[in-house]
Amino acid sequence: MKSTLSSGINRYPRLTPIGFIHSSYTGREQIPKGLGAEHKAEGILEVYPEFADGLQDIEGFSHLFVIWLFHKSEEVHLTGTPPSDNRPHGVFATRSPYRPNPIGLTVVELVRRDGNKLHLRGIDMLDGTPVIDIKPYLSGVPPEQLKRGWLAQAEQRSEKKR
Amino acid sequence: MKSTLSSGINRYPRLTPIGFIHSSYTGREQIPKGLGAEHKAEGILEVYPEFADGLQDIEGFSHLFVIWLFHKSEEVHLTGTPPSDNRPHGVFATRSPYRPNPIGLTVVELVRRDGNKLHLRGIDMLDGTPVIDIKPYLSGVPPEQLKRGWLAQAEQRSEKKR
Repeated sequence: MKSTLSSGINRYPRLTPIGFIHSSYTGREQIPKGLGAEHKAEGILEVYPEFADGLQDIEGFSHLFVIWLFHKSEEVHLTGTPPSDNRPHGVFATRSPYRPNPIGLTVVELVRRDGNKLHLRGIDMLDGTPVIDIKPYLSGVPPEQLKRGWLAQAEQRSEKKR
Repeated sequence: MKSTLSSGINRYPRLTPIGFIHSSYTGREQIPKGLGAEHKAEGILEVYPEFADGLQDIEGFSHLFVIWLFHKSEEVHLTGTPPSDNRPHGVFATRSPYRPNPIGLTVVELVRRDGNKLHLRGIDMLDGTPVIDIKPYLSGVPPEQLKRGWLAQAEQRSEKKR
């Protein structure tokens, strides 16, 4: 289902990129997707000099949340079939780029900081992706407490086929 | 340090709230902050009806990322001293609301879904907070791989004082 969004909703502040991604991925088809996709790619998050003061002490963290823009996505699909399944799911239950707000979120490993350049492992963004926020990753949900919904079911169906 | 942001940067799409938070927190001073702060508060994320189709199958996930707006924050401080420390750190190494883009991120537990209302545990947002995205939480970083930078140091100093 596509939606062009209601025009009656108040629209909120515009976003300001604080930096961008250097990545070897230049096309979406190059990014690993679907069941068992691993994101070990390395890349650099280059923070614009005017925001570099905001990086103070970031090098002490092993992992970061990077919040970024799906700058190549212009459509919104409230439901869709992800690469990891053959059944449709709601956009908020997937990582689809076709979101009401084109915002991506990736947990990355901070390999090292070199001034305003953060060397990262685990990126899944295209080269040139605008970044809008970075936050420290402080703790995770223990695996035994996690339920992974349709994704776990799709994995089970996929294993049965093998 | 304050910054009013460079006007030379291209500004990106405006955000559209997809819903809002019902919370018992009506003032920022009520939200637990600092070392040892626990977020067990329950609340409701009410998704606007026009986006409700995007929730399909979300009830299978135990935990979600909620991306929201610091709608009461108008300032940007690139460095600042968080409640959990007595030393300043860069905004990207903290969860400060005074961010270049006023975006908040919270990992919540999905207790149950009631139509377009998600009953959540672990919220730290004010009542009325606009939500801009929801994503499934799929896996966490194992604790033994995590380094928590200045926060771990602040905790150690705090423990020594006891």
